[in-house]
Amino acid sequence: MSGTKNRQLILKEIPKGKLGPEHFQLRESDVPKPGTGEVLVKVRYISIDAANRAWMQGTTYRAAVKAGDIMAGYSLGEVVEPGDTKLKKGDLVFGDCGWQDYAARPATELNRLPGLEPVTHLLSVYGITGLTAYFGLTEIGAPKSGETLVISAAAGAVGSVAGQIGKVKGCRVVGITGSDEKCAWLTGELGFDVAINYKTENIHEALQKACPDKIDIYFDNVGGEILEAVLFQTNTNGRIICCGAVSGYDGELPTKGPRGIPGLLVVNRITMRGFIVSDFLERFTKAFQDLAEWVATGKIKVREDILEGLENTPQALIGLLNGENLGKRMVKVA
Amino acid sequence: MSGTKNRQLILKEIPKGKLGPEHFQLRESDVPKPGTGEVLVKVRYISIDAANRAWMQGTTYRAAVKAGDIMAGYSLGEVVEPGDTKLKKGDLVFGDCGWQDYAARPATELNRLPGLEPVTHLLSVYGITGLTAYFGLTEIGAPKSGETLVISAAAGAVGSVAGQIGKVKGCRVVGITGSDEKCAWLTGELGFDVAINYKTENIHEALQKACPDKIDIYFDNVGGEILEAVLFQTNTNGRIICCGAVSGYDGELPTKGPRGIPGLLVVNRITMRGFIVSDFLERFTKAFQDLAEWVATGKIKVREDILEGLENTPQALIGLLNGENLGKRMVKVA
Repeated sequence: MSGTKNRQLILKEIPKGKLGPEHFQLRESDVPKPGTGEVLVKVRYISIDAANRAWMQGTTYRAAVKAGDIMAGYSLGEVVEPGDTKLKKGDLVFGDCGWQDYAARPATELNRLPGLEPVTHLLSVYGITGLTAYFGLTEIGAPKSGETLVISAAAGAVGSVAGQIGKVKGCRVVGITGSDEKCAWLTGELGFDVAINYKTENIHEALQKACPDKIDIYFDNVGGEILEAVLFQTNTNGRIICCGAVSGYDGELPTKGPRGIPGLLVVNRITMRGFIVSDFLERFTKAFQDLAEWVATGKIKVREDILEGLENTPQALIGLLNGENLGKRMVKVA
Repeated sequence: MSGTKNRQLILKEIPKGKLGPEHFQLRESDVPKPGTGEVLVKVRYISIDAANRAWMQGTTYRAAVKAGDIMAGYSLGEVVEPGDTKLKKGDLVFGDCGWQDYAARPATELNRLPGLEPVTHLLSVYGITGLTAYFGLTEIGAPKSGETLVISAAAGAVGSVAGQIGKVKGCRVVGITGSDEKCAWLTGELGFDVAINYKTENIHEALQKACPDKIDIYFDNVGGEILEAVLFQTNTNGRIICCGAVSGYDGELPTKGPRGIPGLLVVNRITMRGFIVSDFLERFTKAFQDLAEWVATGKIKVREDILEGLENTPQALIGLLNGENLGKRMVKVA
């Protein structure tokens, strides 16, 4: 270990409305000492994910983050004290280390990562977001060549990879995003067939125009009104990949759901299925192989949005929730 | 043919609110003459289904019924003039013959049925509703012994069979229905573990009490608030069988959907899947065999609610939408 202090970001209070900098507090404490079975991890990059905000709303697939807790968050770290575990000093690991410089974590709750360059790809295309895109689209979406795939939050870390995999699979790919700059990136750089700016276009009309054969697969990262609009234009036997609901994360919980459920699901025999990436753990190796091949052959272009400094982590999340980022956002800590 | 007149029930206007007798008109016309490839069918029993009302709302898996049309409806009929087709005089057939005494229908749109007694079972347990219960539960619900299965409209034609199949599969079965009489029938006669009267009980509390291990499978016939209540108590990897949405059929289309979608689907990895029975056509033979065995061994008790007279068909549907029936409702025409 380094002998320096450990900076930690505390979630001071649970936001009732939108998340702001006032909900966080930076404090310093001693670098923790790992106990039995634990290692000391030096955090290098913190992954910024919309789900971080959902964790403040209550129990999800993990316990809620409560007021006074160190803010939870996945990160890429380096083992500095392996203790009595099988990990070695210098090993790269992935896990929930929280928003801080150092974390003492049980070795069993960390995943050792391979060494590759750039290491940031371990948080983007080869990390949770890339794997989420991969399994969501291939396992739940089951795309067939010629089908129409619509993706929301399409310029985000998951959406941008999911859309490019859709192109690999021969789909017509339509991305929904929140700025003209993002639209230009999706169609100009990533090969999406159409991009829709939901802030300036009428989403119903834009979808109708972009999807002349209606929608077969919807990769949903947002929920809410966009989900509703898509539902009304989904084909028989359509599949809706329920990956996230960011429209409902940054504020009070939504008081209504999308119209057409369950009526349209019955009439058009639509499947909606929620998932999290760890459901597919046993198939990670094959996923890595496919993703690495597509990156190597230029079929997937990786974009990362890297901010600097632990102290900027709150603003990184606030900005992500406001749609600032293109591609995978993370914070370089060390 | 018989030489008599053909009575027909016309949908006079599309109801804006609840369906009433004023929306129908009885008229007489000549018995139709079958054209090339058509047969003349004498309608014996008309199947009364909640879906009949949904057909008035717009296009579903079939074209909408429009003002001035003969009211559509499935029925069990007897071929009286087989014309140039492969069917024979006296054959029992199933198809959409409409609410009338006689129909001229293409032979290719009729299913020939086996002769068995009572013949009404061809519309109930061995008909669309029994098969819907069978495929919805076994294919989409995929029940495992010890799981908790909740069913809405549980005393209806589909729900009452689905619940009994759930018991065959070893599930804890909880039925939701609208009267104490129905509750008593579900638990006293059909072997449901618990029955909830949603009109007199708090549905959230009643579900909590009835499902101490939460809900694994929900056979949804109603949508709306009951779907929402179930969603909030569904386990990880839960399955929601979207079979119908009767809460939204008899009136204006719902202006909101259930809360928790898609958020809860993601967090708990829930699958919602809509279906119609014809999606499983190639497995009908196996379904018949299973159902016949369960009926023969008393594992499925069949209840039929048979009204008499074509002229009473509108009231039969209106009553069904108001929850009058126990088991499969049909109208004996001849």
